[in-house]
Amino acid sequence: MKVLESVAAMRVARQAMAGSMGFVPTMGYLHEGHMALARRARAENEHVVASIFVNPTQFGPHEDFERYPRNQERDLAMLQKEGVDAVFLPPVVEMYPSGSCTYVTVEGLSQKLEGASRPGHFRGVATVVAKLFNIVQPARAYFGQKDAQQVVIIKKMAADLDMNLEIVVCPTVREPDGLAMSSRNVYLNPAERRAALVLWQALCLAREMWQKGERRAEVIPKAMRELIQKEPLARLDYVSLAHSQTLEELESIPKEGEGSVLASLAVYIGKTRLIDNIVLE
Amino acid sequence: MKVLESVAAMRVARQAMAGSMGFVPTMGYLHEGHMALARRARAENEHVVASIFVNPTQFGPHEDFERYPRNQERDLAMLQKEGVDAVFLPPVVEMYPSGSCTYVTVEGLSQKLEGASRPGHFRGVATVVAKLFNIVQPARAYFGQKDAQQVVIIKKMAADLDMNLEIVVCPTVREPDGLAMSSRNVYLNPAERRAALVLWQALCLAREMWQKGERRAEVIPKAMRELIQKEPLARLDYVSLAHSQTLEELESIPKEGEGSVLASLAVYIGKTRLIDNIVLE
Repeated sequence: MKVLESVAAMRVARQAMAGSMGFVPTMGYLHEGHMALARRARAENEHVVASIFVNPTQFGPHEDFERYPRNQERDLAMLQKEGVDAVFLPPVVEMYPSGSCTYVTVEGLSQKLEGASRPGHFRGVATVVAKLFNIVQPARAYFGQKDAQQVVIIKKMAADLDMNLEIVVCPTVREPDGLAMSSRNVYLNPAERRAALVLWQALCLAREMWQKGERRAEVIPKAMRELIQKEPLARLDYVSLAHSQTLEELESIPKEGEGSVLASLAVYIGKTRLIDNIVLE
Repeated sequence: MKVLESVAAMRVARQAMAGSMGFVPTMGYLHEGHMALARRARAENEHVVASIFVNPTQFGPHEDFERYPRNQERDLAMLQKEGVDAVFLPPVVEMYPSGSCTYVTVEGLSQKLEGASRPGHFRGVATVVAKLFNIVQPARAYFGQKDAQQVVIIKKMAADLDMNLEIVVCPTVREPDGLAMSSRNVYLNPAERRAALVLWQALCLAREMWQKGERRAEVIPKAMRELIQKEPLARLDYVSLAHSQTLEELESIPKEGEGSVLASLAVYIGKTRLIDNIVLE
Protein backbone atom coordinates (compact mmCIF):
# COMPACT_ATOMS: atom_id res chain seq x y z
CA MET A 1 0.00 0.00 0.00
CA LYS A 2 1.43 3.32 -1.07
CA VAL A 3 1.28 6.31 1.26
CA LEU A 4 1.45 9.65 -0.55
CA GLU A 5 1.90 12.95 1.20
CA SER A 6 1.99 15.43 -1.70
CA VAL A 7 -0.49 16.27 -4.44
CA ALA A 8 2.23 15.66 -7.03
CA ALA A 9 3.03 12.18 -5.68
CA MET A 10 -0.67 11.31 -5.50
CA ARG A 11 -1.10 12.37 -9.14
CA VAL A 12 1.80 10.16 -10.23
CA ALA A 13 0.34 7.20 -8.31
CA ARG A 14 -3.07 7.89 -9.83
CA GLN A 15 -1.63 7.92 -13.35
CA ALA A 16 -0.36 4.38 -12.82
CA MET A 17 -3.84 3.09 -11.89
CA ALA A 18 -5.73 2.31 -15.09
CA GLY A 19 -9.29 1.08 -14.72
CA SER A 20 -12.01 1.96 -12.25
CA MET A 21 -11.04 3.80 -9.09
CA GLY A 22 -12.96 3.92 -5.82
CA PHE A 23 -12.18 6.68 -3.34
CA VAL A 24 -12.83 6.80 0.41
CA PRO A 25 -12.17 10.27 1.84
CA THR A 26 -11.81 10.30 5.65
CA MET A 27 -10.58 12.45 8.50
CA GLY A 28 -8.81 9.43 9.99
CA TYR A 29 -9.23 7.81 13.41
CA LEU A 30 -10.99 5.09 11.51
CA HIS A 31 -13.77 2.86 12.75
CA GLU A 32 -16.02 0.14 11.33
CA GLY A 33 -18.05 2.76 9.44
CA HIS A 34 -14.99 3.73 7.41
CA MET A 35 -14.05 0.08 6.94
CA ALA A 36 -17.49 -0.63 5.46
CA LEU A 37 -16.81 2.15 2.90
CA ALA A 38 -13.37 0.70 2.10
CA ARG A 39 -14.74 -2.81 1.68
CA ARG A 40 -17.51 -1.65 -0.63
CA ALA A 41 -15.00 0.40 -2.65
CA ARG A 42 -12.73 -2.66 -2.81
CA ALA A 43 -15.60 -4.84 -4.06
CA GLU A 44 -16.72 -2.40 -6.76
CA ASN A 45 -13.47 -1.06 -8.26
CA GLU A 46 -10.13 -2.17 -9.65
CA HIS A 47 -8.27 0.33 -7.47
CA VAL A 48 -9.04 1.87 -4.10
CA VAL A 49 -7.58 5.10 -2.74
CA ALA A 50 -8.37 6.42 0.74
CA SER A 51 -7.46 9.81 2.10
CA ILE A 52 -6.80 10.85 5.68
CA PHE A 53 -7.02 14.60 6.15
CA VAL A 54 -8.43 16.49 9.12
CA ASN A 55 -9.69 19.44 7.14
CA PRO A 56 -9.27 22.69 9.11
CA THR A 57 -11.67 24.70 6.92
CA GLN A 58 -14.69 22.67 7.99
CA PHE A 59 -14.14 23.36 11.70
CA GLY A 60 -15.43 26.52 13.34
CA PRO A 61 -13.08 28.67 15.45
CA HIS A 62 -14.34 27.15 18.73
CA GLU A 63 -14.68 23.58 17.50
CA ASP A 64 -12.43 20.58 18.03
CA PHE A 65 -9.97 20.81 15.12
CA GLU A 66 -6.90 20.82 17.37
CA ARG A 67 -8.02 17.95 19.59
CA TYR A 68 -9.75 15.90 16.86
CA PRO A 69 -8.47 12.34 17.48
CA ARG A 70 -5.61 11.13 15.31
CA ASN A 71 -3.86 7.76 15.04
CA GLN A 72 -2.09 7.49 11.74
CA GLU A 73 -0.29 4.21 12.35
CA ARG A 74 -3.45 2.35 13.33
CA ASP A 75 -5.41 3.94 10.43
CA LEU A 76 -2.84 2.80 7.88
CA ALA A 77 -2.80 -0.74 9.27
CA MET A 78 -6.61 -0.89 9.05
CA LEU A 79 -6.66 0.37 5.45
CA GLN A 80 -3.91 -2.03 4.43
CA LYS A 81 -5.91 -4.92 5.87
CA GLU A 82 -8.86 -3.98 3.64
CA GLY A 83 -6.69 -4.07 0.52
CA VAL A 84 -6.58 -0.32 -0.12
CA ASP A 85 -3.99 0.43 -2.83
CA ALA A 86 -2.94 3.92 -1.81
CA VAL A 87 -3.54 6.41 0.99
CA PHE A 88 -3.36 10.15 0.39
CA LEU A 89 -2.15 11.76 3.61
CA PRO A 90 -1.32 15.40 2.90
CA PRO A 91 -0.16 17.95 5.47
CA VAL A 92 -2.40 21.02 5.78
CA VAL A 93 0.02 23.27 3.86
CA GLU A 94 -0.13 20.90 0.89
CA MET A 95 -3.90 21.26 0.67
CA TYR A 96 -4.06 24.94 1.59
CA PRO A 97 -0.89 26.76 0.51
CA SER A 98 -0.63 30.36 1.65
CA GLY A 99 -3.02 32.56 -0.32
CA SER A 100 -5.66 29.90 -1.06
CA CYS A 101 -8.89 31.81 -1.64
CA THR A 102 -11.20 29.61 -3.76
CA TYR A 103 -14.32 28.08 -2.26
CA VAL A 104 -17.13 25.84 -3.43
CA THR A 105 -20.52 26.58 -1.91
CA VAL A 106 -23.80 24.70 -2.25
CA GLU A 107 -26.23 27.43 -1.39
CA GLY A 108 -29.44 26.85 0.53
CA LEU A 109 -28.69 23.26 1.51
CA SER A 110 -25.55 24.36 3.39
CA GLN A 111 -27.36 26.81 5.66
CA LYS A 112 -29.80 24.32 7.22
CA LEU A 113 -29.43 21.80 10.11
CA GLU A 114 -25.69 21.25 10.69
CA GLY A 115 -24.95 24.36 8.63
CA ALA A 116 -27.12 26.51 10.90
CA SER A 117 -25.21 25.25 13.97
CA ARG A 118 -21.82 25.24 12.22
CA PRO A 119 -21.57 28.27 9.86
CA GLY A 120 -19.00 27.69 7.11
CA HIS A 121 -18.83 23.95 7.81
CA PHE A 122 -20.21 22.80 4.47
CA ARG A 123 -18.25 25.39 2.51
CA GLY A 124 -15.16 23.74 3.99
CA VAL A 125 -16.50 20.26 3.23
CA ALA A 126 -17.50 21.04 -0.36
CA THR A 127 -14.20 22.76 -1.09
CA VAL A 128 -11.97 20.02 0.27
CA VAL A 129 -14.03 17.28 -1.38
CA ALA A 130 -13.84 19.10 -4.74
CA LYS A 131 -10.06 19.33 -4.30
CA LEU A 132 -9.73 15.66 -3.34
CA PHE A 133 -11.87 14.60 -6.30
CA ASN A 134 -9.64 16.63 -8.64
CA ILE A 135 -6.50 15.09 -7.18
CA VAL A 136 -7.65 11.46 -6.95
CA GLN A 137 -10.04 11.48 -9.95
CA PRO A 138 -12.18 8.56 -8.84
CA ALA A 139 -15.00 6.92 -10.78
CA ARG A 140 -16.85 6.38 -7.46
CA ALA A 141 -16.55 8.04 -4.07
CA TYR A 142 -17.91 6.49 -0.87
CA PHE A 143 -19.58 8.36 1.98
CA GLY A 144 -21.52 7.24 5.05
CA GLN A 145 -25.21 7.98 5.59
CA LYS A 146 -24.24 8.98 9.16
CA ASP A 147 -23.43 12.43 7.73
CA ALA A 148 -26.74 12.69 5.91
CA GLN A 149 -26.57 16.38 5.07
CA GLN A 150 -22.97 16.05 3.86
CA VAL A 151 -24.13 13.33 1.47
CA VAL A 152 -26.96 15.48 0.10
CA ILE A 153 -24.60 18.42 -0.39
CA ILE A 154 -21.83 16.44 -2.03
CA LYS A 155 -24.27 14.79 -4.42
CA LYS A 156 -25.66 18.24 -5.30
CA MET A 157 -22.19 19.68 -5.80
CA ALA A 158 -21.15 16.78 -8.03
CA ALA A 159 -24.30 17.15 -10.14
CA ASP A 160 -24.23 20.96 -10.34
CA LEU A 161 -20.53 21.12 -11.25
CA ASP A 162 -20.77 18.18 -13.70
CA MET A 163 -18.21 16.14 -11.81
CA ASN A 164 -17.74 12.91 -13.68
CA LEU A 165 -18.15 10.44 -10.83
CA GLU A 166 -20.70 8.51 -8.82
CA ILE A 167 -21.38 9.27 -5.17
CA VAL A 168 -22.05 6.01 -3.31
CA VAL A 169 -23.77 6.24 0.07
CA CYS A 170 -23.33 3.42 2.59
CA PRO A 171 -25.55 2.72 5.62
CA THR A 172 -24.58 4.03 9.04
CA VAL A 173 -22.64 1.43 11.01
CA ARG A 174 -23.70 1.18 14.66
CA GLU A 175 -22.34 -0.22 17.91
CA PRO A 176 -24.27 -3.28 19.20
CA ASP A 177 -26.46 -1.00 21.36
CA GLY A 178 -27.28 1.31 18.42
CA LEU A 179 -24.88 4.24 18.91
CA ALA A 180 -23.68 5.40 15.49
CA MET A 181 -19.95 4.86 14.97
CA SER A 182 -18.07 8.15 15.09
CA SER A 183 -14.46 9.14 15.63
CA ARG A 184 -15.78 11.58 18.24
CA ASN A 185 -17.18 8.75 20.40
CA VAL A 186 -13.67 8.47 21.87
CA TYR A 187 -14.32 11.78 23.69
CA LEU A 188 -17.05 10.14 25.82
CA ASN A 189 -16.38 8.94 29.39
CA PRO A 190 -18.29 5.80 30.49
CA ALA A 191 -21.29 7.72 31.85
CA GLU A 192 -21.46 9.85 28.70
CA ARG A 193 -21.15 6.75 26.55
CA ARG A 194 -24.28 5.37 28.20
CA ALA A 195 -26.08 8.72 27.89
CA ALA A 196 -25.14 8.97 24.17
CA LEU A 197 -27.57 6.19 23.42
CA VAL A 198 -30.33 8.76 23.73
CA LEU A 199 -29.74 9.86 20.10
CA TRP A 200 -30.54 6.41 18.77
CA GLN A 201 -33.43 6.02 21.20
CA ALA A 202 -34.95 9.27 19.94
CA LEU A 203 -34.60 8.11 16.33
CA CYS A 204 -36.17 4.74 17.16
CA LEU A 205 -39.04 6.55 18.83
CA ALA A 206 -39.52 8.64 15.67
CA ARG A 207 -39.51 5.52 13.52
CA GLU A 208 -41.99 3.77 15.81
CA MET A 209 -44.40 6.71 15.75
CA TRP A 210 -44.01 6.92 11.99
CA GLN A 211 -44.67 3.21 11.53
CA LYS A 212 -47.77 3.50 13.70
CA GLY A 213 -49.08 6.10 11.26
CA GLU A 214 -48.30 9.37 13.02
CA ARG A 215 -48.30 12.02 10.27
CA ARG A 216 -48.53 15.30 12.18
CA ALA A 217 -45.12 16.89 11.57
CA GLU A 218 -44.77 18.59 14.94
CA VAL A 219 -45.71 15.61 17.11
CA ILE A 220 -42.70 13.44 16.34
CA PRO A 221 -39.98 16.09 16.98
CA LYS A 222 -41.76 17.08 20.20
CA ALA A 223 -41.64 13.49 21.45
CA MET A 224 -37.94 13.22 20.48
CA ARG A 225 -37.15 16.45 22.32
CA GLU A 226 -38.93 15.28 25.44
CA LEU A 227 -37.04 12.00 25.42
CA ILE A 228 -33.68 13.79 25.12
CA GLN A 229 -34.54 16.27 27.85
CA LYS A 230 -34.96 13.35 30.28
CA GLU A 231 -31.26 12.48 29.90
CA PRO A 232 -29.31 14.71 32.36
CA LEU A 233 -25.99 14.50 30.44
CA ALA A 234 -27.61 15.47 27.12
CA ARG A 235 -28.20 18.99 25.79
CA LEU A 236 -30.19 19.19 22.57
CA ASP A 237 -28.83 21.26 19.66
CA TYR A 238 -31.60 20.45 17.17
CA VAL A 239 -34.13 17.84 16.15
CA SER A 240 -35.40 17.92 12.58
CA LEU A 241 -37.90 16.20 10.34
CA ALA A 242 -37.04 17.35 6.85
CA HIS A 243 -37.47 16.41 3.22
CA SER A 244 -34.56 14.02 2.58
CA GLN A 245 -33.38 15.78 -0.61
CA THR A 246 -34.23 19.47 -0.17
CA LEU A 247 -33.69 19.36 3.62
CA GLU A 248 -36.67 21.69 3.95
CA GLU A 249 -38.21 21.34 7.39
CA LEU A 250 -41.57 19.61 7.07
CA GLU A 251 -44.75 21.48 7.79
CA SER A 252 -46.67 18.28 7.32
CA ILE A 253 -45.30 14.83 6.69
CA PRO A 254 -45.47 13.87 3.01
CA LYS A 255 -47.90 11.25 1.82
CA GLU A 256 -46.80 8.17 -0.03
CA GLY A 257 -44.90 8.98 -3.21
CA GLU A 258 -44.02 12.51 -2.10
CA GLY A 259 -40.48 11.57 -1.11
CA SER A 260 -38.85 10.32 2.04
CA VAL A 261 -38.25 12.04 5.36
CA LEU A 262 -34.93 12.57 7.10
CA ALA A 263 -35.21 12.47 10.88
CA SER A 264 -31.98 13.93 12.24
CA LEU A 265 -30.62 15.42 15.41
CA ALA A 266 -27.55 16.90 17.04
CA VAL A 267 -27.02 16.52 20.78
CA TYR A 268 -24.24 17.56 23.12
CA ILE A 269 -23.29 14.74 25.49
CA GLY A 270 -21.16 16.61 28.00
CA LYS A 271 -18.88 18.66 25.75
CA THR A 272 -19.10 16.23 22.82
CA ARG A 273 -21.44 17.09 19.98
CA LEU A 274 -22.91 14.01 18.30
CA ILE A 275 -25.21 13.68 15.29
CA ASP A 276 -27.33 10.85 13.95
CA ASN A 277 -30.23 10.29 11.57
CA ILE A 278 -32.60 7.80 9.99
CA VAL A 279 -34.62 7.98 6.82
CA LEU A 280 -38.35 7.31 7.20
CA GLU A 281 -39.66 5.84 3.96
CA MET B 1 -16.32 18.31 -36.70
CA LYS B 2 -18.77 17.05 -34.10
CA VAL B 3 -21.32 19.41 -32.57
CA LEU B 4 -22.58 18.27 -29.17
CA GLU B 5 -25.49 19.85 -27.38
CA SER B 6 -25.77 17.76 -24.22
CA VAL B 7 -23.36 17.04 -21.38
CA ALA B 8 -23.90 13.31 -21.92
CA ALA B 9 -23.05 13.52 -25.64
CA MET B 10 -19.97 15.64 -24.91
CA ARG B 11 -18.77 13.07 -22.36
CA VAL B 12 -19.16 10.26 -24.91
CA ALA B 13 -17.23 12.25 -27.53
CA ARG B 14 -14.54 13.05 -24.94
CA GLN B 15 -14.15 9.36 -24.06
CA ALA B 16 -13.28 8.63 -27.68
CA MET B 17 -10.44 11.18 -27.71
CA ALA B 18 -7.35 9.54 -26.25
CA GLY B 19 -4.23 11.67 -25.96
CA SER B 20 -3.80 15.35 -25.13
CA MET B 21 -6.82 17.62 -25.31
CA GLY B 22 -6.84 21.38 -25.79
CA PHE B 23 -9.98 23.32 -24.88
CA VAL B 24 -11.12 26.75 -26.06
CA PRO B 25 -14.14 28.01 -24.09
CA THR B 26 -15.96 30.90 -25.80
CA MET B 27 -19.22 32.82 -25.73
CA GLY B 28 -19.37 32.64 -29.52
CA TYR B 29 -19.56 35.47 -32.07
CA LEU B 30 -15.99 34.54 -32.77
CA HIS B 31 -13.23 36.85 -33.96
CA GLU B 32 -9.51 36.61 -34.66
CA GLY B 33 -8.77 36.55 -30.94
CA HIS B 34 -10.69 33.30 -30.56
CA MET B 35 -9.09 31.93 -33.73
CA ALA B 36 -5.63 32.56 -32.28
CA LEU B 37 -6.63 30.45 -29.26
CA ALA B 38 -7.96 27.67 -31.50
CA ARG B 39 -4.81 27.65 -33.64
CA ARG B 40 -2.56 27.47 -30.60
CA ALA B 41 -4.69 24.67 -29.12
CA ARG B 42 -4.53 22.87 -32.48
CA ALA B 43 -0.73 23.18 -32.57
CA GLU B 44 -0.20 21.94 -29.01
CA ASN B 45 -2.68 19.05 -28.65
CA GLU B 46 -3.86 15.88 -30.34
CA HIS B 47 -7.51 16.93 -29.95
CA VAL B 48 -9.20 20.31 -29.76
CA VAL B 49 -12.63 21.01 -28.28
CA ALA B 50 -14.22 24.46 -28.33
CA SER B 51 -17.36 25.49 -26.50
CA ILE B 52 -19.89 28.17 -27.39
CA PHE B 53 -22.04 29.16 -24.46
CA VAL B 54 -23.30 32.63 -23.57
CA ASN B 55 -23.28 32.10 -19.81
CA PRO B 56 -26.19 33.88 -18.15
CA THR B 57 -24.74 33.71 -14.64
CA GLN B 58 -21.85 36.04 -15.50
CA PHE B 59 -24.14 38.83 -16.70
CA GLY B 60 -25.66 41.32 -14.26
CA PRO B 61 -29.42 41.99 -14.34
CA HIS B 62 -29.00 45.18 -16.39
CA GLU B 63 -26.23 43.90 -18.66
CA ASP B 64 -26.37 42.67 -22.25
CA PHE B 65 -27.10 38.94 -21.88
CA GLU B 66 -30.21 39.05 -24.06
CA ARG B 67 -28.68 41.12 -26.84
CA TYR B 68 -25.17 39.60 -26.68
CA PRO B 69 -24.32 38.93 -30.36
CA ARG B 70 -24.81 35.38 -31.61
CA ASN B 71 -24.04 33.75 -34.97
CA GLN B 72 -23.82 30.02 -34.56
CA GLU B 73 -23.51 29.08 -38.22
CA ARG B 74 -20.59 31.43 -38.83
CA ASP B 75 -18.92 30.37 -35.55
CA LEU B 76 -19.08 26.68 -36.47
CA ALA B 77 -17.65 27.34 -39.94
CA MET B 78 -14.75 29.29 -38.42
CA LEU B 79 -13.96 26.55 -35.89
CA GLN B 80 -14.14 23.86 -38.55
CA LYS B 81 -11.67 25.80 -40.68
CA GLU B 82 -9.18 25.77 -37.79
CA GLY B 83 -9.43 21.99 -37.46
CA VAL B 84 -11.36 21.88 -34.21
CA ASP B 85 -12.53 18.30 -33.53
CA ALA B 86 -15.67 19.00 -31.53
CA VAL B 87 -17.79 21.93 -30.41
CA PHE B 88 -19.80 21.82 -27.20
CA LEU B 89 -22.88 23.96 -27.70
CA PRO B 90 -25.26 23.40 -24.78
CA PRO B 91 -28.57 25.16 -24.23
CA VAL B 92 -28.84 27.07 -20.94
CA VAL B 93 -31.06 24.43 -19.32
CA GLU B 94 -28.41 21.79 -19.97
CA MET B 95 -25.81 23.79 -18.03
CA TYR B 96 -28.16 25.08 -15.35
CA PRO B 97 -31.01 22.66 -14.72
CA SER B 98 -33.71 23.91 -12.37
CA GLY B 99 -32.43 23.95 -8.79
CA SER B 100 -28.72 24.49 -9.58
CA CYS B 101 -27.24 26.08 -6.46
CA THR B 102 -23.49 25.36 -6.43
CA TYR B 103 -20.99 28.17 -7.00
CA VAL B 104 -17.24 28.52 -7.21
CA THR B 105 -15.85 31.78 -5.85
CA VAL B 106 -12.30 33.09 -5.91
CA GLU B 107 -12.46 35.52 -3.03
CA GLY B 108 -10.62 38.83 -2.99
CA LEU B 109 -9.51 38.73 -6.63
CA SER B 110 -13.16 38.63 -7.78
CA GLN B 111 -14.16 41.83 -5.98
CA LYS B 112 -11.64 44.16 -7.66
CA LEU B 113 -11.67 45.96 -11.05
CA GLU B 114 -14.27 44.27 -13.27
CA GLY B 115 -15.72 42.57 -10.19
CA ALA B 116 -16.31 45.93 -8.50
CA SER B 117 -18.20 47.17 -11.56
CA ARG B 118 -19.92 43.84 -12.23
CA PRO B 119 -20.87 42.16 -8.91
CA GLY B 120 -21.25 38.39 -9.28
CA HIS B 121 -19.55 38.39 -12.69
CA PHE B 122 -16.54 36.31 -11.67
CA ARG B 123 -18.61 33.94 -9.56
CA GLY B 124 -20.50 33.18 -12.78
CA VAL B 125 -17.25 32.87 -14.76
CA ALA B 126 -15.51 30.61 -12.23
CA THR B 127 -18.56 28.37 -11.87
CA VAL B 128 -19.15 27.86 -15.58
CA VAL B 129 -15.46 27.33 -16.30
CA ALA B 130 -15.26 24.72 -13.51
CA LYS B 131 -18.27 22.97 -15.03
CA LEU B 132 -16.83 23.10 -18.56
CA PHE B 133 -13.48 21.75 -17.33
CA ASN B 134 -15.28 18.85 -15.62
CA ILE B 135 -17.25 18.06 -18.76
CA VAL B 136 -14.47 18.44 -21.34
CA GLN B 137 -11.54 17.34 -19.11
CA PRO B 138 -8.82 19.09 -21.08
CA ALA B 139 -5.07 18.90 -20.48
CA ARG B 140 -4.79 22.57 -21.52
CA ALA B 141 -7.33 25.37 -21.67
CA TYR B 142 -6.78 28.55 -23.72
CA PHE B 143 -7.79 32.06 -22.69
CA GLY B 144 -7.02 35.52 -24.07
CA GLN B 145 -5.03 38.13 -22.16
CA LYS B 146 -7.74 40.61 -23.21
CA ASP B 147 -9.69 39.44 -20.16
CA ALA B 148 -6.72 39.87 -17.84
CA GLN B 149 -8.58 39.55 -14.56
CA GLN B 150 -10.48 36.50 -15.79
CA VAL B 151 -7.16 34.86 -16.57
CA VAL B 152 -5.77 35.61 -13.09
CA ILE B 153 -8.94 34.27 -11.45
CA ILE B 154 -9.14 31.10 -13.53
CA LYS B 155 -5.47 30.33 -12.88
CA LYS B 156 -6.05 30.83 -9.16
CA MET B 157 -9.17 28.65 -9.20
CA ALA B 158 -7.36 25.88 -11.05
CA ALA B 159 -4.45 26.00 -8.60
CA ASP B 160 -6.57 26.27 -5.44
CA LEU B 161 -8.94 23.46 -6.44
CA ASP B 162 -6.10 21.23 -7.72
CA MET B 163 -7.55 21.05 -11.21
CA ASN B 164 -5.30 18.84 -13.27
CA LEU B 165 -4.77 21.08 -16.29
CA GLU B 166 -2.67 23.91 -17.66
CA ILE B 167 -4.12 27.37 -18.26
CA VAL B 168 -2.54 28.84 -21.41
CA VAL B 169 -2.80 32.59 -21.91
CA CYS B 170 -2.56 34.04 -25.43
CA PRO B 171 -1.80 37.66 -26.33
CA THR B 172 -4.63 40.09 -27.06
CA VAL B 173 -5.37 40.26 -30.79
CA ARG B 174 -5.95 43.80 -32.07
CA GLU B 175 -7.45 45.50 -35.10
CA PRO B 176 -4.85 47.26 -37.33
CA ASP B 177 -5.44 50.54 -35.47
CA GLY B 178 -4.98 48.93 -32.05
CA LEU B 179 -8.56 48.34 -30.85
CA ALA B 180 -8.69 45.03 -28.98
CA MET B 181 -10.83 42.42 -30.73
CA SER B 182 -14.09 41.87 -28.87
CA SER B 183 -17.48 40.39 -29.77
CA ARG B 184 -18.97 43.57 -28.31
CA ASN B 185 -17.25 45.77 -30.94
CA VAL B 186 -20.21 44.96 -33.19
CA TYR B 187 -22.34 47.23 -31.00
CA LEU B 188 -20.32 50.29 -32.08
CA ASN B 189 -21.55 52.67 -34.78
CA PRO B 190 -18.87 54.26 -37.02
CA ALA B 191 -18.37 57.31 -34.79
CA GLU B 192 -18.18 55.12 -31.71
CA ARG B 193 -15.76 52.78 -33.47
CA ARG B 194 -13.38 55.73 -33.98
CA ALA B 195 -13.89 56.91 -30.39
CA ALA B 196 -13.21 53.39 -29.05
CA LEU B 197 -9.58 53.78 -30.01
CA VAL B 198 -9.17 55.92 -26.90
CA LEU B 199 -8.74 52.76 -24.77
CA TRP B 200 -5.68 51.68 -26.71
CA GLN B 201 -4.36 55.25 -26.84
CA ALA B 202 -4.60 55.49 -23.04
CA LEU B 203 -2.73 52.21 -22.65
CA CYS B 204 -0.04 53.34 -25.10
CA LEU B 205 0.33 56.55 -23.12
CA ALA B 206 0.78 54.51 -19.93
CA ARG B 207 3.42 52.36 -21.59
CA GLU B 208 5.24 55.38 -22.95
CA MET B 209 5.34 57.09 -19.56
CA TRP B 210 6.45 53.83 -17.98
CA GLN B 211 9.22 53.32 -20.55
CA LYS B 212 10.41 56.90 -19.94
CA GLY B 213 10.87 55.97 -16.28
CA GLU B 214 7.73 57.38 -14.66
CA ARG B 215 7.37 55.50 -11.36
CA ARG B 216 4.88 57.59 -9.40
CA ALA B 217 1.80 55.39 -9.25
CA GLU B 218 -0.78 58.17 -9.37
CA VAL B 219 0.71 60.08 -12.32
CA ILE B 220 0.06 57.45 -15.00
CA PRO B 221 -3.65 56.80 -14.23
CA LYS B 222 -4.21 60.56 -14.01
CA ALA B 223 -2.78 61.07 -17.51
CA MET B 224 -4.88 58.16 -18.83
CA ARG B 225 -8.05 59.60 -17.27
CA GLU B 226 -7.36 63.02 -18.80
CA LEU B 227 -6.87 61.50 -22.23
CA ILE B 228 -10.18 59.59 -22.02
CA GLN B 229 -12.07 62.65 -20.78
CA LYS B 230 -11.10 64.47 -23.99
CA GLU B 231 -13.12 61.95 -26.05
CA PRO B 232 -16.77 63.13 -26.04
CA LEU B 233 -18.27 59.68 -26.78
CA ALA B 234 -16.30 58.03 -23.95
CA ARG B 235 -17.32 57.73 -20.31
CA LEU B 236 -14.70 56.24 -17.99
CA ASP B 237 -15.67 53.38 -15.67
CA TYR B 238 -12.22 52.79 -14.16
CA VAL B 239 -8.50 53.05 -14.83
CA SER B 240 -6.17 50.87 -12.78
CA LEU B 241 -2.50 50.23 -12.24
CA ALA B 242 -2.34 47.03 -10.21
CA HIS B 243 -0.01 44.19 -9.33
CA SER B 244 -0.50 41.73 -12.19
CA GLN B 245 -1.04 38.70 -9.94
CA THR B 246 -2.68 40.02 -6.76
CA LEU B 247 -4.57 42.78 -8.64
CA GLU B 248 -3.87 45.03 -5.64
CA GLU B 249 -3.97 48.65 -6.71
CA LEU B 250 -0.45 50.06 -6.63
CA GLU B 251 0.50 52.66 -4.07
CA SER B 252 3.88 52.96 -5.70
CA ILE B 253 5.06 51.23 -8.85
CA PRO B 254 7.22 48.21 -8.03
CA LYS B 255 10.95 48.28 -8.67
CA GLU B 256 12.65 45.75 -10.89
CA GLY B 257 12.12 42.18 -9.68
CA GLU B 258 9.05 43.08 -7.63
CA GLY B 259 6.65 41.76 -10.26
CA SER B 260 4.89 43.24 -13.23
CA VAL B 261 2.15 45.83 -13.45
CA LEU B 262 -1.25 45.45 -15.08
CA ALA B 263 -2.54 48.66 -16.60
CA SER B 264 -6.23 48.14 -17.29
CA LEU B 265 -9.35 50.15 -17.93
CA ALA B 266 -13.07 49.94 -18.66
CA VAL B 267 -14.74 52.66 -20.72
CA TYR B 268 -18.28 53.12 -21.99
CA ILE B 269 -18.32 54.15 -25.64
CA GLY B 270 -21.91 55.23 -26.02
CA LYS B 271 -23.80 52.37 -24.34
CA THR B 272 -21.09 49.80 -25.04
CA ARG B 273 -18.74 48.90 -22.22
CA LEU B 274 -15.26 47.97 -23.45
CA ILE B 275 -12.20 46.77 -21.52
CA ASP B 276 -8.54 46.52 -22.40
CA ASN B 277 -5.16 46.13 -20.68
CA ILE B 278 -1.42 45.84 -21.10
CA VAL B 279 1.23 44.43 -18.82
CA LEU B 280 4.13 46.76 -18.00
CA GLU B 281 7.22 44.67 -17.32
